[in-house]
Amino acid sequence: MKAARYFDRGDIRIENIEVPPVEPGTVGIDVAWCGICGTDLHEYLEGPIFVPPVGHPHPTSGETAPVTLGHEMSGTVYAVGDDVTDLKVGDNVVVEPYIIDPKESTEPGSNYHITPGMGFIGLQGRGGGLGEKITVERRWVHPIGDIALDEAALIEPLAVGYHAYVRSGAKSGDIALVGGAGPIGLLTAAVLKANGLTVIISELSDLRRQKAIDSGVADHALNPAELDVVEEVKRLSGGSGADVAFECSSVQVVLDTLFDAIRPGGVIVVVAIWGHPAQLELQKLVLKEVDMRGTIAYMGNHPDVIKLVQSGKVNLKPFITGKIALEDLIDKGFDTLIHRNDTAVKILVSPSGRGL
Amino acid sequence: MKAARYFDRGDIRIENIEVPPVEPGTVGIDVAWCGICGTDLHEYLEGPIFVPPVGHPHPTSGETAPVTLGHEMSGTVYAVGDDVTDLKVGDNVVVEPYIIDPKESTEPGSNYHITPGMGFIGLQGRGGGLGEKITVERRWVHPIGDIALDEAALIEPLAVGYHAYVRSGAKSGDIALVGGAGPIGLLTAAVLKANGLTVIISELSDLRRQKAIDSGVADHALNPAELDVVEEVKRLSGGSGADVAFECSSVQVVLDTLFDAIRPGGVIVVVAIWGHPAQLELQKLVLKEVDMRGTIAYMGNHPDVIKLVQSGKVNLKPFITGKIALEDLIDKGFDTLIHRNDTAVKILVSPSGRGL
Repeated sequence: MKAARYFDRGDIRIENIEVPPVEPGTVGIDVAWCGICGTDLHEYLEGPIFVPPVGHPHPTSGETAPVTLGHEMSGTVYAVGDDVTDLKVGDNVVVEPYIIDPKESTEPGSNYHITPGMGFIGLQGRGGGLGEKITVERRWVHPIGDIALDEAALIEPLAVGYHAYVRSGAKSGDIALVGGAGPIGLLTAAVLKANGLTVIISELSDLRRQKAIDSGVADHALNPAELDVVEEVKRLSGGSGADVAFECSSVQVVLDTLFDAIRPGGVIVVVAIWGHPAQLELQKLVLKEVDMRGTIAYMGNHPDVIKLVQSGKVNLKPFITGKIALEDLIDKGFDTLIHRNDTAVKILVSPSGRGL
Repeated sequence: MKAARYFDRGDIRIENIEVPPVEPGTVGIDVAWCGICGTDLHEYLEGPIFVPPVGHPHPTSGETAPVTLGHEMSGTVYAVGDDVTDLKVGDNVVVEPYIIDPKESTEPGSNYHITPGMGFIGLQGRGGGLGEKITVERRWVHPIGDIALDEAALIEPLAVGYHAYVRSGAKSGDIALVGGAGPIGLLTAAVLKANGLTVIISELSDLRRQKAIDSGVADHALNPAELDVVEEVKRLSGGSGADVAFECSSVQVVLDTLFDAIRPGGVIVVVAIWGHPAQLELQKLVLKEVDMRGTIAYMGNHPDVIKLVQSGKVNLKPFITGKIALEDLIDKGFDTLIHRNDTAVKILVSPSGRGL
């Protein structure tokens, strides 16, 4: 089968590899679509970051580069292991792409996502969604019912936004400020909007602001080059400031804006992966008693996220801005996202070419 | 009456001023003891910071320098306003030294401590504990029963530690790392210890570590110059790291240590007032899903703090390291704390000279 294999920085190859066996406790999935994540781009441009380099195997998967990329996948079950009785061939599914130390509990609430030795399928071993087929442990496979397979490929990044929302403790009626309208900012906004918050997005790019408004995920999309976002958030919140804020940009000035725009006692959730140190006036954290919370990936959120999409409260279609073949991964996928990332939100890859 | 009046940086004068009238709704207090706070030192050395300078009156008190200093006070009621029926002359009390906009609620749970226009008695107007008498609104006066008046002067900074503990969400059995064993670090540790936590303090000063051990507030006092605090905390916690950590130093390397020593999903409370920006590897916040929470002063904590001291679970005596007259405020008070602050924890001032 064909798969996109990450060897090293700038070196991703489409290769023919063996179809992975479907063993007891696992599910064989025929991948329909796999989204390209910002993390994949970082591996390509600056990595290996998450991918374990040769000589440094991942502690849980035991694998090193080359690894098959892709962790935002949807597909159809084509085989199940002998002891898998609650999924059947033909079921459409998504994957919660975790590699967890077998010693750790993976029950909901166990915080398995921040255990030592945690890794991600599609970055740190066990195949990836940028291959025609993948075999995944049953516990990481979630049935999606009648959600369209292309939209379902966005359930993984949507779960990131959902988990950030849960971490924030936000409730219906709250005012949220989202800093940055890249894919994760938009999908976080979508979750917030679906849960009854007023959503204000701050974003420099005209096209991204337009997407935030057109897709219906933001009530207000502010251009920080044109107006004082802090003053505008205060005005929109009756003077107090935002109840919750989400840092989705990894840009210092955005972080500063969130700290100035949050109300006393408010919560700032850091969703972005920062490759560089941030500067922080801790006085702002202390004197306003702000909670600044890290959030990574998801933990037990997939069933709720799938229900949210099934309810129709989140429409994922506006965020699919391209569909390409595996052979075009670099040219039409990575390069588009790197060089024209204002118009592109989520580009989906069909490893088998079906659906194109 | 005599009072220590802050005019400007380096300019604190002991003056004779009028005794403030006791009006309806207020309580007249004969001050027994008033502690010197690090905040007072900062005003003296680097201020005015909190003190409103001439021409810039505090929005709620309407006052400017000169103001009477001192906010860590205990005393005895000598008069009550006509409508004050639940306190009587002779009651021993402490003051929760707030100046709150009359528009704001001050009910417990209302977060009155982070409302706009909040100020502190003894820094931003309405007299101070470094005067012989003070008149305070009834709601900010807390009776202390039979707690000794000298120990009671430490209830205010103890309430800071108590509020930080509440903010942390820590529970009995948790492992706490406290960064810095100055007065607030020690008193925070005292609250944690009294509430059933295992307390590890990291502190460079031999004398302060000794105080932390001798006073019984720390189970372990680590010297970061001699050992790897992160490794030691991990060893003491069975590998996982501290459940909660308290930044009580405003030192960058301490903050870094807390982030490395905290367990995944742990909480770091910033108690110290930072006059300079901090650097933060947000990756550590994100990948371990750390909560970093600011805490300022107290909010509805005084009754619980008073009960805690009455229960005998916190012994404040070891932290009283000096008792001085008002006339010696600078020479024996401020200068001792500034130049020999390793041995001094809390120096109490008797404005009237009683008790010396």
